[in-house]
Amino acid sequence: MSVEITGFNWVPDFAKGYVRDLRPRWACEEIGLPYAMRLMHPMERPAEYREEQPWLQVPALRDGDVRLFESGAILLHLGEQDARLLPRDPMARARAIAWLFAAFSSVEPWMMQIGEVELFSNGAQWAELRRASLIESCGERLDRLAEALGNRDWLAGTFSIADIAMVTVLRDDCGTGVVTCRPVLAASVERGTARPAFRRARDAQLADFTAHAPKAA
Amino acid sequence: MSVEITGFNWVPDFAKGYVRDLRPRWACEEIGLPYAMRLMHPMERPAEYREEQPWLQVPALRDGDVRLFESGAILLHLGEQDARLLPRDPMARARAIAWLFAAFSSVEPWMMQIGEVELFSNGAQWAELRRASLIESCGERLDRLAEALGNRDWLAGTFSIADIAMVTVLRDDCGTGVVTCRPVLAASVERGTARPAFRRARDAQLADFTAHAPKAA
Repeated sequence: MSVEITGFNWVPDFAKGYVRDLRPRWACEEIGLPYAMRLMHPMERPAEYREEQPWLQVPALRDGDVRLFESGAILLHLGEQDARLLPRDPMARARAIAWLFAAFSSVEPWMMQIGEVELFSNGAQWAELRRASLIESCGERLDRLAEALGNRDWLAGTFSIADIAMVTVLRDDCGTGVVTCRPVLAASVERGTARPAFRRARDAQLADFTAHAPKAA
Repeated sequence: MSVEITGFNWVPDFAKGYVRDLRPRWACEEIGLPYAMRLMHPMERPAEYREEQPWLQVPALRDGDVRLFESGAILLHLGEQDARLLPRDPMARARAIAWLFAAFSSVEPWMMQIGEVELFSNGAQWAELRRASLIESCGERLDRLAEALGNRDWLAGTFSIADIAMVTVLRDDCGTGVVTCRPVLAASVERGTARPAFRRARDAQLADFTAHAPKAA
């Protein structure tokens, strides 16, 4: 029995290839772990899905009796299964896990605020007034990330779930340049998204949207 | 050799008892694990501390050769050492880890925005304009958390690192009422902060500030 990951069968065009089930798909592709998708329409999320995913978001994962939500928890679970995703050396393992949490607790919250200002609340007066200071604060955080990464290719020395987390967090800066104007970070996104496993995961997500596209009236 | 946790020897009064080294202190107190504090002044953080904690924040942890940053990663590391912090049953363990990530990835980012609007940017025009919609969005997230917690005492069935994470995230809603007006969440904060280990941890943090208080001129 393969692991099962939840995803959507429809999203607006701008979100295609970016929905968060991309993260466990990518991890599975890195180690050749078969996975099955359970797709739902975002406007028709069953109420009982709340028991698996309290925010009604994707992804959630089932692996035998284990039920998980939160990208970080799911990546950690998949990482435990293969040293290609989570190094076994205790020091490297600690580093990978610290950066896994860092991606979702210390970097993504800034990128989500960027998304709020640039996309979801774009045009709202508060967002116009907030933009400059937010980009500055987010930029300071990203400067420290770039410093920490330095000239290493991967956050924990070798490729790991920390990179799947961080690359997917950094991948879209909504045209603000907070990522793309920082060469170390732009290069790290390039490096991550050039991996064949990333491309297979993204293509599989895109193919699911095509397969389930609403029929023209 | 005991674990070593970093903290500050001075913070403004409003932050005393709330600085994030409280989290690993609390975890250690729950299981009687001795820990040593390495305190620094927030205005004099050594540049080389960046190698341990890329954001220059506290806490960071040393345990033998292992170096960790991010509250979540540190709590997970301490949890692995004792079933009283992280249940061994695979399903309960998965639940605790999912909620650990949820606290720091899906709830704290909202609480930090509340802190930004109410405290750090209080009075800024954007913050005044943003307040209502932020409290509404944060409230929706917290409604789902309250639903998920329901009438259970602890997120993973028994007390765990997930509760240390969530209680410390929810503990201060900056007077907005987003937490205190939701009885399920207010009760969960009460329950967590009533634990003797929480009180010992908070008192120890407060005692460190007293011991290192700047001398009156």
